[in-house]
Amino acid sequence: MADPHITDMSQAAGEGPLAMIVGGGSIPIAVAEAVERRGRRVVLFPIRGWAEPAVVEKFRHHWIPLAKAGLFRRHARAEGCRDVVFVGTASRPPLRSLRVDWLTLRLLPRVVRAYRGGDDHLISSAARIFEDYGFRIVGAHEMAPEILMPEGPIGSRHPSGRDEADIVRALALLQATGAFDMGQGAIIADNHVLAVEAAEGTDAMVRRVADLRAQRRIAIPAGRGVLVKAPKLHQDRRFDLPAIGPRTVEEVARAGLAGIAVVAGGSIIAEPAAVALAADKANVFVVGVKADRP
Amino acid sequence: MADPHITDMSQAAGEGPLAMIVGGGSIPIAVAEAVERRGRRVVLFPIRGWAEPAVVEKFRHHWIPLAKAGLFRRHARAEGCRDVVFVGTASRPPLRSLRVDWLTLRLLPRVVRAYRGGDDHLISSAARIFEDYGFRIVGAHEMAPEILMPEGPIGSRHPSGRDEADIVRALALLQATGAFDMGQGAIIADNHVLAVEAAEGTDAMVRRVADLRAQRRIAIPAGRGVLVKAPKLHQDRRFDLPAIGPRTVEEVARAGLAGIAVVAGGSIIAEPAAVALAADKANVFVVGVKADRP
Repeated sequence: MADPHITDMSQAAGEGPLAMIVGGGSIPIAVAEAVERRGRRVVLFPIRGWAEPAVVEKFRHHWIPLAKAGLFRRHARAEGCRDVVFVGTASRPPLRSLRVDWLTLRLLPRVVRAYRGGDDHLISSAARIFEDYGFRIVGAHEMAPEILMPEGPIGSRHPSGRDEADIVRALALLQATGAFDMGQGAIIADNHVLAVEAAEGTDAMVRRVADLRAQRRIAIPAGRGVLVKAPKLHQDRRFDLPAIGPRTVEEVARAGLAGIAVVAGGSIIAEPAAVALAADKANVFVVGVKADRP
Repeated sequence: MADPHITDMSQAAGEGPLAMIVGGGSIPIAVAEAVERRGRRVVLFPIRGWAEPAVVEKFRHHWIPLAKAGLFRRHARAEGCRDVVFVGTASRPPLRSLRVDWLTLRLLPRVVRAYRGGDDHLISSAARIFEDYGFRIVGAHEMAPEILMPEGPIGSRHPSGRDEADIVRALALLQATGAFDMGQGAIIADNHVLAVEAAEGTDAMVRRVADLRAQRRIAIPAGRGVLVKAPKLHQDRRFDLPAIGPRTVEEVARAGLAGIAVVAGGSIIAEPAAVALAADKANVFVVGVKADRP
């Protein structure tokens, strides 16, 4: 696609501000703050209907309705952005609900093809489209490595031997499902698989276990069981790394679980201080683990 | 355990009536009818709180509260039953809620050990306990093979090529999770894994997909996607084979899926005529497939 703007822009951009395409949740703010602490400016492009207004208002931003690729391109060029990160939760909208603009219309055949298949496929297709227009897609964790989960516990509680066994089993389960491009979360308690995540997302999965417990359909006593999250097998780590925050801790406590284990270096932790506080208050552990433990 | 009654009973029993320990749902009635059509009497032992009164009243029966193993043994012996089937859905009750009788109390250390681990483990432990008391645990499908799902479609609709691809992928996913002793159901639409079953059970999983669709969180148009059920890898087929009935068909239609595929010979189909009728009315397919298709 011959587009005279591309060369202009890439010459003008240099390091420029970082364009952040912002979905839901509190992770984007943690990323934006971390990037600015490192001395690089950010410009947020919150997606209308996904991003939370309170989150984006502290930063320079332009609201973008989904499927307005042309609008994003115009604003991003005017701001001198070349590097783009995607961060925050997304929901997969029904195609027919989108009101596309001209640029998106030209891209539509590729978008439709991208809709077949799992999230990874959708996301990597979107990335290629951006790159064709001269943008460079980068990972949020490349811009601010401190948002990645470290190894070891956050907060003062540690997993017990029983919790460790549940963690090992959950990691093995997630490895087995890794090839299927689906949600990479599971809840195991006392060796018993309580829930596996797919399209519903982690929060809904944790709430399901809370409901099963409230209905007395889970026999395992409160205070046992672990939520485990791992990145997907062939995941493009520039997108959609598993993320946990204080709210995850609260949901896990409400479901009567012992704690949370996420793969160190393969998951984003938003607001680690707030996570530690919430974990100690709820008496749950939060731990970064190696993916390949025995 | 030296128990003078055991030898007496096994000598007296001969073929005797079939004892059916009855959980929830409509499958038990289909099994009881099939067994009696074959000329063998049945005596039902419905579990209080699980079995539906309307289902058991047509047959000779004794209600048994859960954890009253002694009461079951007494009635079953008086009825001259030696062969026992387990059929119907179970929920895993909190241990502390059980009011155990003397026999159960003696067995309690084994029951507690059985509670650690997945359903298969719990079930095979229960089976060994019964066998120690001179009963013989048999599979419902051994007593009435006609309750097993045949190969090919039930009703007039067939899976499309796209549905076939989703079925193959779901069978591969269930094979990957088979070693983890968890629910063996999944829903895949257009190559995208929408849901994986664990402790919540098949019905709740299908309703989850219906909810996600109602919340517009699934982009795939209605009329696509397949519920696939398979027996577990090391499943003791005397227990808890996957089962579908007319209600499954209605739930699947409500979730906007194209149909249901279950492993032929490895799943129970309750009321096949009613399933065919429900499938045609809802315009969904119901098909028995080989587990090892390419």
